[in-house]
Amino acid sequence: MAEEQVIRSRRIEIDPIAETLEMFTYGLYIIGSRGSDNVNGMMADWVMQVSFQPRLVACSLEKNSTTLRNLRETGVFTVNLLAAEDRELARKFAQPRDASKIQGRSETGSALIYDKMRGIPYWDGEHTACPILQAGLAYVECEVHELIDLGDHVLAVGRVLTCAVLRESTELLTNRILGWSYAG
Amino acid sequence: MAEEQVIRSRRIEIDPIAETLEMFTYGLYIIGSRGSDNVNGMMADWVMQVSFQPRLVACSLEKNSTTLRNLRETGVFTVNLLAAEDRELARKFAQPRDASKIQGRSETGSALIYDKMRGIPYWDGEHTACPILQAGLAYVECEVHELIDLGDHVLAVGRVLTCAVLRESTELLTNRILGWSYAG
Repeated sequence: MAEEQVIRSRRIEIDPIAETLEMFTYGLYIIGSRGSDNVNGMMADWVMQVSFQPRLVACSLEKNSTTLRNLRETGVFTVNLLAAEDRELARKFAQPRDASKIQGRSETGSALIYDKMRGIPYWDGEHTACPILQAGLAYVECEVHELIDLGDHVLAVGRVLTCAVLRESTELLTNRILGWSYAG
Repeated sequence: MAEEQVIRSRRIEIDPIAETLEMFTYGLYIIGSRGSDNVNGMMADWVMQVSFQPRLVACSLEKNSTTLRNLRETGVFTVNLLAAEDRELARKFAQPRDASKIQGRSETGSALIYDKMRGIPYWDGEHTACPILQAGLAYVECEVHELIDLGDHVLAVGRVLTCAVLRESTELLTNRILGWSYAG
């Protein structure tokens, strides 16, 4: 039995669909949001501009995410851009706020709420009151334009209210640089 | 008057919104499509996965693009992934098929149709009959799941029918590597 399990886990699963979709390159962004009971930052790579006039930015969110709940409640969010050298900062956001989202956790473990903004310096956005990371490279403040159900995610389309560049850097943090992938 | 124009054109326009949105990082993809009168390849960076189940890939298209016209007609498209070293191949797709889309062209120039697939080896996708670049890194064949009006673009959401990796490469071509930006 144990031996069978070992063999099974060693079998290489070749899924060309997952393999191809994992090759897509994305920037890594921290989506800032705020609800009646939380201030949140979520790492996201499925983020892109989708229109020039008006300027719209889209982000695909898990249906049970704290971020989506916050967006439905307040209708605003921020997109924080990180520099390639900000790997350590980014890693703090790689875990979901609600531990019950991680499969296989014990009941006690699942009840934990992980406050990702604790100890991270941020300002409240002027237009949205959503977190703007002080160590970020730049940020976008958005108002929800539309929330669109797409498969097992919801595409949050935000109208850009304002943007600012906080400091100079040559390179944006990407999924490749961090070695963190949400795709496949 | 001439002097005034010179001064005007030298003025540095600081638009923090454009500056921030231009910092977003994207992979570069060639969207393959086919209509009753054309086979087309369009360079795009506003491309991302948006759902796991079903697997959905979204691409934001200009409303007057040949690609969007083709998608409305046939309901299928391909996404071709290029390697970082394929800069020359990518540059062939940087121009629109319909020259009238380029502002300031003469009437004669505007009437030109630039066949971007000429001389570029491709196969017809098994499921879509849309072009698969033989020099590409990998490709995705998609069926249109939804076309969503978003500002001045239409988001084409495709359900993934199949994918294949054509060859090994360490790095996907990005807007930064090519020095081609469609953002801001």
